[in-house]
Amino acid sequence: MTTNAFTLDPRLAADTTPVAEWPLCRVLLIRDARFAWLVLVPRRAGITEMLDLEPDDRRQLSAEIDRAAAGLRRSVRCDKLNVAALGNMVAQLHVHVIARNRTDAAWPKPVWGQGTAQPYDDAEAANLIKRLNAAFAG
Amino acid sequence: MTTNAFTLDPRLAADTTPVAEWPLCRVLLIRDARFAWLVLVPRRAGITEMLDLEPDDRRQLSAEIDRAAAGLRRSVRCDKLNVAALGNMVAQLHVHVIARNRTDAAWPKPVWGQGTAQPYDDAEAANLIKRLNAAFAG
Repeated sequence: MTTNAFTLDPRLAADTTPVAEWPLCRVLLIRDARFAWLVLVPRRAGITEMLDLEPDDRRQLSAEIDRAAAGLRRSVRCDKLNVAALGNMVAQLHVHVIARNRTDAAWPKPVWGQGTAQPYDDAEAANLIKRLNAAFAG
Repeated sequence: MTTNAFTLDPRLAADTTPVAEWPLCRVLLIRDARFAWLVLVPRRAGITEMLDLEPDDRRQLSAEIDRAAAGLRRSVRCDKLNVAALGNMVAQLHVHVIARNRTDAAWPKPVWGQGTAQPYDDAEAANLIKRLNAAFAG
């Protein structure tokens, strides 16, 4: 059933680097070094709202959100976590999980639409992804 | 143990009208007629992050988020739901559940910090709360 296969939205793909594949979600890192900012995308075609997931998937999504949040908190400075499913620009269901701190570029505002993304250099992104995956496993 | 009793943050209280008391959360309506915008506040003292809730409470929070979202979708025009736990300004754990539509005052941006809240008149707020509670029950 290729018509129902999951395909990552090209706008999400363009802005992110892959971090992990979890039982439900593809875990992505937003390429903006100002924030430790993950996006979780359930590998389910045609879903735009959390409440439209099958019940087992909905429970798994909550568990994976918490796993991402806990991993961020163990890996980087994190005064507050921000968790959000918005989807006004990209309808494909995706959940932002972001480590915020009081000195970051947008604090205390939400991160969306604030200033300009600052690219990671390759080593910096690879190092963060490695630390995150170690924290997720821990 | 009054020292550990739940008390609604005064800033949340100031911006909202009570809608319902659910098993875990106090359900509030943000007093801004531009958006059908609920805030769910788990009645647990001292919690600022979803992942720090007890597991049963965490599961209940997800269920109540979905109940709020479904009720909004049945009650008002809703092209997209926005669900977010931010808490950069008010640390007390609270979850925004917002019905968005393509003609609303902030679309496609997130609602936070966009323009000025437009007060409801009393009858309008009462009518919306009545419709929401009917939808939550349905």
